[in-house]
Amino acid sequence: MIGDIPAVTVAAYGRSVGTVHPRSIQFNDPLPLESGVQLPAPWTLAYETYGQLNAQRSNAILVCHALSGDAHAAGTHSTNGKRPGWWDAFIGPGRAFDTDRYFVICSNVIGGCAGSTGPASLMPGTDQPYGSRFPVITIADMVAAQARLIDALGIDVLMAVAGGSMGGMQALQWTVSYPERVQGVLAIATTARSSAMTIALNTIGRQAIIRDQRWCGGDYYAARPPVDGLAIARMVGHISYLSDQALADKFDRRLQDHPAIQYSVEPEFAVESYLEYQGNSFVQRFDANSYLVITKAMDYFDLPGRYGSLRRALARSQAHFLALSFSSDWLYPTSELDALAAGLRSAGRPVRQIEFDSPKGHDAFLLEDGLMSPIIAEFLEDLAPLQARFV
Amino acid sequence: MIGDIPAVTVAAYGRSVGTVHPRSIQFNDPLPLESGVQLPAPWTLAYETYGQLNAQRSNAILVCHALSGDAHAAGTHSTNGKRPGWWDAFIGPGRAFDTDRYFVICSNVIGGCAGSTGPASLMPGTDQPYGSRFPVITIADMVAAQARLIDALGIDVLMAVAGGSMGGMQALQWTVSYPERVQGVLAIATTARSSAMTIALNTIGRQAIIRDQRWCGGDYYAARPPVDGLAIARMVGHISYLSDQALADKFDRRLQDHPAIQYSVEPEFAVESYLEYQGNSFVQRFDANSYLVITKAMDYFDLPGRYGSLRRALARSQAHFLALSFSSDWLYPTSELDALAAGLRSAGRPVRQIEFDSPKGHDAFLLEDGLMSPIIAEFLEDLAPLQARFV
Repeated sequence: MIGDIPAVTVAAYGRSVGTVHPRSIQFNDPLPLESGVQLPAPWTLAYETYGQLNAQRSNAILVCHALSGDAHAAGTHSTNGKRPGWWDAFIGPGRAFDTDRYFVICSNVIGGCAGSTGPASLMPGTDQPYGSRFPVITIADMVAAQARLIDALGIDVLMAVAGGSMGGMQALQWTVSYPERVQGVLAIATTARSSAMTIALNTIGRQAIIRDQRWCGGDYYAARPPVDGLAIARMVGHISYLSDQALADKFDRRLQDHPAIQYSVEPEFAVESYLEYQGNSFVQRFDANSYLVITKAMDYFDLPGRYGSLRRALARSQAHFLALSFSSDWLYPTSELDALAAGLRSAGRPVRQIEFDSPKGHDAFLLEDGLMSPIIAEFLEDLAPLQARFV
Repeated sequence: MIGDIPAVTVAAYGRSVGTVHPRSIQFNDPLPLESGVQLPAPWTLAYETYGQLNAQRSNAILVCHALSGDAHAAGTHSTNGKRPGWWDAFIGPGRAFDTDRYFVICSNVIGGCAGSTGPASLMPGTDQPYGSRFPVITIADMVAAQARLIDALGIDVLMAVAGGSMGGMQALQWTVSYPERVQGVLAIATTARSSAMTIALNTIGRQAIIRDQRWCGGDYYAARPPVDGLAIARMVGHISYLSDQALADKFDRRLQDHPAIQYSVEPEFAVESYLEYQGNSFVQRFDANSYLVITKAMDYFDLPGRYGSLRRALARSQAHFLALSFSSDWLYPTSELDALAAGLRSAGRPVRQIEFDSPKGHDAFLLEDGLMSPIIAEFLEDLAPLQARFV
């Protein structure tokens, strides 16, 4: 552990927000993109909110999702309680993001495929999906789109922006793009600058999709999509989200269906079945072109490169920072958060950095609510007295 | 570092063995396999030798190759000096495997595609390649085939068996299968038991091949082979052979062809071009079915599982052991060699274990000749006085 665990303990587990309603908002102005082109109007963001915006509009927290996430961060969409939001354990009454106190917002990124405008959406002025015509976007573009949503909700200043993995990139970009609008940043299992290793892992996923004959240059929506390439991409991703130890703990060398090896090239070990299942179920809910566009946005993410240096990028910020990492995360290891924290200190920004001891790899940011919740709750608590400066 | 670096220094760099001639040997008896089926006769092993077998036939060292290797371990096949053997820096006059003193042998594994019988070979009694009819084999089967070659060369006892990665598995299997025939084992960047992580990485490569529509159940030899699947498999492999640091040192975020990002889903970063090149060149020299069969043999490798415990497996051995690992190798980390060394100690076998500090990842076993050569030379030197017991 870097940093101290606070003596304060909170009711980390609290309650779920219960049944929630997916929402969406349409924007009728084009969105200028970093590439110089525009995302034409109309374009849409899917979003959800949890808790109530207070009268001062000062208790809003934007939660940003990772590569395969969506706007459904908490609660369930139906009363049967199936498919809780991806950060459900963190968001709710008495949870880390306490919906008795805070107004929590989450939206699907542009380029995504869960309600927001992406490559599978109909291109305005045509009766066809964008497909290959969807522009390649950046993390800053995702954040610019979110800013329109925050505007529409009547919120000037976000008390905090939080996210893990690509969500953390968005949180960092928010305070750089809109320094006067962000009071606190929670950057979890993330980086300010995508590494050669993360680019390498993403490019294999992209190559698997692009080399799938069904990809058809991106215009596959009238036919069978490139599910094999996308499944392989997901399997590569999954390996990078887990640690050696997590895989050993979960599967070791256990066989799936037979008491002994079958001398076959087909999957036999439980870890093989698991990956195959993850790949095959992912293609039911995710669009291959979105995978290409979103991973490319991650690969482009480079605050030092974009702004001259990390210090210069972060010197724009007026926020307080919480930087969290996990000991077994080899995708965004603690060294990435060390670099971020060093940049923040050189820019004169307050930062609290903690490495949690966890065997769960990168996925820990979704799973270690017990470890993270007291830290997150305390960080948010400490932001409250600072609001006068912003509001 | 675990263990001490010896004060002895050797001429680690020595000379190349120069031009060498590929050889092959045909066996006219079927080879019984662990699965219970037989590899039908005739079957072939491609091999090379370097140095001279002494009169007592006591100076033979078998070097075993890794997944994508072949019999060409040292020297060059033509006088233009192109494509030196995969362990050329280690084998030659004055090198770690000193061909002025030792007779070094390397053969392509069965199941391979570089001269030994594998899935692309004609199936005896037919005019078609084996394809889907090639049996799934094990590391012990590869070693049983090699033993036939060692018999044919008139060698009873191998002074040493050496290898990195899958080559190390073969070295370990040799002393377990033929305890009376192996005096020394050099197990480098390897394991006695494939882990869930290595199975996971291999299964992604296999899935990429199997899901390539051109694989055709393994019977693709009359048409275009599944080059896209095999290229993806190779890219996944390459990532696992390199460390985060090695990728950062070599590529960082450098762009390949343009001064700025192009907002394209195609490869732009140098690390992407590198992986694409590695994938595309691999398919020129490697057979997809061999990739399936050989990776499956690696995944099956489990000395403790096969023999009841690691101690029981290794108690059969009469060899001395050298166990080497590299600090940045996350595929076969030092913990795997720790487990091997513990098993050897519990079995009463002498073992020297060293972890080298290297940023080069798993590939270090091919690259760190400067670090490894003195250690290997000393280990071989120390074996010499022990020969009386064997010969």
